[in-house]
Amino acid sequence: MKTLLDERNLPALARGCAVLGAGGGGDLHLGTLMALQAIHDNQAVPLVDLDELPGDGLVMVCGELGTPIVSSEKIENGAEGRRLREYVESLWGKPVVALMSVEIGGWNGLLPVAWAARMGLPVLDADGTGRAFPEVQMATMSLAGVPSSPTVMTDERGSVIVLRTPTDKWTERLARATAVELGGVAAIAGYNLTVARAREATVRGSVSLAIEIGQAIEAAPGDPVDALVDKLGAFRLVAGKVLDVERRTTKGFVRGSVVVEGLGDDGGRLVRLELQNENLVALERGEVLASVPDNISVLDSATADAISTEMVRYGQRVTVIAFPSAPVWRTPRGIEIVGPRAFGYDFDYVPVEEIFRGRSRDR
Amino acid sequence: MKTLLDERNLPALARGCAVLGAGGGGDLHLGTLMALQAIHDNQAVPLVDLDELPGDGLVMVCGELGTPIVSSEKIENGAEGRRLREYVESLWGKPVVALMSVEIGGWNGLLPVAWAARMGLPVLDADGTGRAFPEVQMATMSLAGVPSSPTVMTDERGSVIVLRTPTDKWTERLARATAVELGGVAAIAGYNLTVARAREATVRGSVSLAIEIGQAIEAAPGDPVDALVDKLGAFRLVAGKVLDVERRTTKGFVRGSVVVEGLGDDGGRLVRLELQNENLVALERGEVLASVPDNISVLDSATADAISTEMVRYGQRVTVIAFPSAPVWRTPRGIEIVGPRAFGYDFDYVPVEEIFRGRSRDR
Repeated sequence: MKTLLDERNLPALARGCAVLGAGGGGDLHLGTLMALQAIHDNQAVPLVDLDELPGDGLVMVCGELGTPIVSSEKIENGAEGRRLREYVESLWGKPVVALMSVEIGGWNGLLPVAWAARMGLPVLDADGTGRAFPEVQMATMSLAGVPSSPTVMTDERGSVIVLRTPTDKWTERLARATAVELGGVAAIAGYNLTVARAREATVRGSVSLAIEIGQAIEAAPGDPVDALVDKLGAFRLVAGKVLDVERRTTKGFVRGSVVVEGLGDDGGRLVRLELQNENLVALERGEVLASVPDNISVLDSATADAISTEMVRYGQRVTVIAFPSAPVWRTPRGIEIVGPRAFGYDFDYVPVEEIFRGRSRDR
Repeated sequence: MKTLLDERNLPALARGCAVLGAGGGGDLHLGTLMALQAIHDNQAVPLVDLDELPGDGLVMVCGELGTPIVSSEKIENGAEGRRLREYVESLWGKPVVALMSVEIGGWNGLLPVAWAARMGLPVLDADGTGRAFPEVQMATMSLAGVPSSPTVMTDERGSVIVLRTPTDKWTERLARATAVELGGVAAIAGYNLTVARAREATVRGSVSLAIEIGQAIEAAPGDPVDALVDKLGAFRLVAGKVLDVERRTTKGFVRGSVVVEGLGDDGGRLVRLELQNENLVALERGEVLASVPDNISVLDSATADAISTEMVRYGQRVTVIAFPSAPVWRTPRGIEIVGPRAFGYDFDYVPVEEIFRGRSRDR
């Protein structure tokens, strides 16, 4: 066991999940309260490494799918995780030995902790993206050839849907339509796999990384944004205030754009973020400052807390940063699945550090 | 065994299914060709009564869900029925002894015959509506307390979706969203049940009735519409030509209205039909001539062939008839599920024979 997830490190984990979420993944405030309550009512959750578990052990890869903001009002009834587990165990014919977040970013980084506390299971120090992405097929398991099928979904009313599909994109289509019909979000377990396969098909160490990120902010002796930028090796895209937000919730996603007006040293600059659940692209005068798969985060300039795409609003003082994605997303296959063109943009991916080469890192 | 379904009686069955379909249920021409081919390539299909089968035998209740017209271009690959059966048998842990149409009306009255021919299984002389209705919960099994869950869906690409829901209306919602995402229609098996339960929860004899209806038209010595009206004890709502059609395919249904202008004895009359996959209501000067659950059919005035809501078009010479639904739909619970108010109309159901009492039956 690497550590116990409990009330001491959960707030740091939540802050880290928000930063890694690239703007996506929903309301961490509510998520933190729910995980703390689950741990208080039951037990702390062991965080374990893949090497600590037997190779043939079954990992349930889980989280929530849909429009993140909906989770703030459409709250789970507490039985969703157990119900997913029951069906996953029945489909695979063996017990689940650990839960893993399908994505560490946002609320999905905490939800499996809440479920694991109620079930007495450990959580893996790994996830399926190293950040958050909006669609099912955008997972390292898909890259590694682990099928999303069979995928199990459930909701607070007790419906259970099992999807078997020919491709992970079909899982995305059917799971999205199902989540929309269930009210906007649903609990989901897909890409379930053995520990042995997970060793090659996941982003390892991402829960520990999220805790470290949160602790770096908490323990910052000076400016917490400085501390976070140092910790991540991030690039500052702009510091200023939110000038405009255009946002709509449609077909199971939140889409839109955010314009940040530079202040101080960045006076006169306008940086535009485009989003689909997550921040996808940062543009200035038509030039790309950063893009998927690299992580673009909007931080509160005073506290360094990441602000989700659904909570960002006019007048907030923010610093926008970008930092490299997990290496697997920067391979040709990775870029095919989650690069700019996968989201409909007509330009090629350039790593954020190449874009900033020659520029001042702290422009 | 009551009879063998083969090339001799299949055309009559198809004509009968069209009449019982109340305008719904899709393209019988294509459906007839597919069923004939399946029988030609494999074997004729025994039509059996529920009393011929063991009480604990499992009946697969099946058909297609979605926008009927889509079936004309999105054709099955032939494996759908077998795949549904495989999952139904696995979920129930026993073999399927017979197939039953979820609804006798339209293409769904023939599809299980095609599937049964390929599998070497009999088809039950019964169905789940006695006509066609647009939504999943509008089934006699639902009235009798047989749950639609678990429902299995599949399509020509090989996806398999298993739905478990708290209510049959939730099955409708999730199955509809799934069918839309799969392209507009999907193969479905829900309300699967034992022979013993089917004896109390279905409309019995409906396949035989459909064949008799078709044969009455085929064998008519004079006007086939007269022969059909006699056979059904139907009421003529109007005879004339189609003056206007307003129709849109949306959210997995076809919706709209049809106006028929009276000719000859009916000169000067205008009768308006409103539809959701099926003909729901017939109105004249704001008065109801007939409504769900009673069956409203638009017939070709020359041949007495029923014209589906998706094939009706300007200029066709038609006779609109109405006849009583299966008795179970005329009970208070039945009217609650499939009466006018269940479709959003603000008036109470009056049986068609009461509306026409005092009027000339052949007005």
